Amino acid sequence: MKTVGYGVHDAESVLEPLHFERRALRPGDVAIEILYCGICHSDLHQVRNDWGMSQYPMVPGHEIVGRVLEVGGEVERFQPGDTVAVGCLVDSCQECDQCHRGEEQFCREGSTKTYNSRDRVSEEPTFGGYSKHIVVRQEFVLSVPESLDISRAAPILCAGITTFSPLRAAAVGSGSRVGVIGVGGLGHMAMKLAKAMGATVTAITRTSEKGEAARRIGADAVLVSNDQASMEAAANAFDLLIDTVPVKHNLDRYLPLLDIDGKLVLVGQLGQMEEVSTLPLVLGNRSVSGSLIGGIPETQEVLNFCAEHEIHPECEMIRMEEVNTAFDRLERGDISHRFVIDMSSLELS
Amino acid sequence: MKTVGYGVHDAESVLEPLHFERRALRPGDVAIEILYCGICHSDLHQVRNDWGMSQYPMVPGHEIVGRVLEVGGEVERFQPGDTVAVGCLVDSCQECDQCHRGEEQFCREGSTKTYNSRDRVSEEPTFGGYSKHIVVRQEFVLSVPESLDISRAAPILCAGITTFSPLRAAAVGSGSRVGVIGVGGLGHMAMKLAKAMGATVTAITRTSEKGEAARRIGADAVLVSNDQASMEAAANAFDLLIDTVPVKHNLDRYLPLLDIDGKLVLVGQLGQMEEVSTLPLVLGNRSVSGSLIGGIPETQEVLNFCAEHEIHPECEMIRMEEVNTAFDRLERGDISHRFVIDMSSLELS
Repeated sequence: MKTVGYGVHDAESVLEPLHFERRALRPGDVAIEILYCGICHSDLHQVRNDWGMSQYPMVPGHEIVGRVLEVGGEVERFQPGDTVAVGCLVDSCQECDQCHRGEEQFCREGSTKTYNSRDRVSEEPTFGGYSKHIVVRQEFVLSVPESLDISRAAPILCAGITTFSPLRAAAVGSGSRVGVIGVGGLGHMAMKLAKAMGATVTAITRTSEKGEAARRIGADAVLVSNDQASMEAAANAFDLLIDTVPVKHNLDRYLPLLDIDGKLVLVGQLGQMEEVSTLPLVLGNRSVSGSLIGGIPETQEVLNFCAEHEIHPECEMIRMEEVNTAFDRLERGDISHRFVIDMSSLELS
Repeated sequence: MKTVGYGVHDAESVLEPLHFERRALRPGDVAIEILYCGICHSDLHQVRNDWGMSQYPMVPGHEIVGRVLEVGGEVERFQPGDTVAVGCLVDSCQECDQCHRGEEQFCREGSTKTYNSRDRVSEEPTFGGYSKHIVVRQEFVLSVPESLDISRAAPILCAGITTFSPLRAAAVGSGSRVGVIGVGGLGHMAMKLAKAMGATVTAITRTSEKGEAARRIGADAVLVSNDQASMEAAANAFDLLIDTVPVKHNLDRYLPLLDIDGKLVLVGQLGQMEEVSTLPLVLGNRSVSGSLIGGIPETQEVLNFCAEHEIHPECEMIRMEEVNTAFDRLERGDISHRFVIDMSSLELS
């Protein structure tokens, strides 16, 4: 199947139109017309090879919402016309302990990512959602509940699941005291989700301007991390901190905010963590952990949860050809929360 | 009540005999003749003011086993002649959430430590177990089960509870894969306890000689941390790592040993942790946490557990006047596991 997308040929080039073939449908495959695709900060990292594992050419994008065009002969769960979604994963072995417990991101044989990965059957590179179509095996296709506004749902597929999973793992509910460090793409979803779970939510940010934006989204309180007095007054005030900061930073200022047994979960940064004092960890049984997206069952769960609680990411809609400008703005931090590409702006011709 | 102990007058001096008064019994107090006291590595740190919070004069010691001499008028749980123990804590508010859940070490008003602390009533300094007698309120006195050999039980009060608590928190049982980093005082107790809980236990140590000692104690396997090939082969091999290393060290070599969702728990080191990569944390939902001793109910539980499973710390018995030599040897690492002072070597006269 012929399609078109936007991709790069190396770490230095800008995104430009790329014509390529999607695979012919296997019996368990679903062919999807992509309607919207979110721009994740990791797309920028991958395009630029910041993590040293990029393969080119690359078509990024793993926050995909679309409509089923065609299904393979063995597909029973979906039919043409269904509104569906695809997140960060498109395949895994389906047989190991991690796949069996629905944590396909940790597949023992290695999960297949939506882009910058290799198809398990053909070994061809996978291309992501900055494109008109995608073909995905049915086990990795998600249903989009009818009540979700599909033009604002795409970021749930990465920013949503990435923050939903650690909130669920920490059993956040009524009475939980959750702090969200950083109020960008991941952070604003963490706040909306934690709030809907019944938690008291505090946005922790460097500037009071960002704090105002967080309040509009629903944060109960704002803690400005450069304000030493406020930070000291907030000692022991949180059960859980979701740390969405995407760059190297120091945790010494945040760990004392946790109460006894409190947990700080890193979801935004891959790389070195600055030297940190063990005192808050040992003297309060506190922990620092990481969390990687979520498996397919939990990704379906967050879609359903967002539908049920009428949660929509804050999206700024762009046209496909504006993607390079969007990347520049993302790099400068000139974005309220999440860019979403309206794929109707891209013509196959 | 007149007593004698060994203490220091400042961070530079050696331990020497110190005559002092234990308080007159309050209605809820228990007076104890100390029979044995373990030497914890933290005693050395406190005597030398390594953590910057030492008060002098100081009589260290918080692994205390003894016999009840006398009880206050309101004491019903103990009577003269009972074999009892005292650990790291001698008081707390008894009213806050942490005290109510039996985690007195996290008392919101601050727990009272067995030494280098201040009595909640008189505000006088507390003196520890390197002494002939101690007076402790009954809520902080533990019962020593009859089947325990009291001459080898003292280290359970700190080394035991400090490792028991994170093993319990991680629900270690049959099938658990536990690695113990460092095989000294804390480490050897972690191995014995984890083994009795049904886990497969691996000693992780820098030298194969220490590994042999670990096998004699009951480790199922030994992993030599300087052996790069063995370390790589052990990737993802552990559910839990108990890290007993008492000095600043780097976790990058240990975190990849953890399986998905695995936990590394720091119990030995207070201070800076070297810069570490977040990759194993984020890409495998792994965590680094700390754990501080344990509360009174759990300390009683570990005493009972050791009695039930016939677990005794490996002790090297010394006389009170040998304590400075023991400190020197402890500092040099010239000790198999734990020194215990036989307090009958100290005369009150």
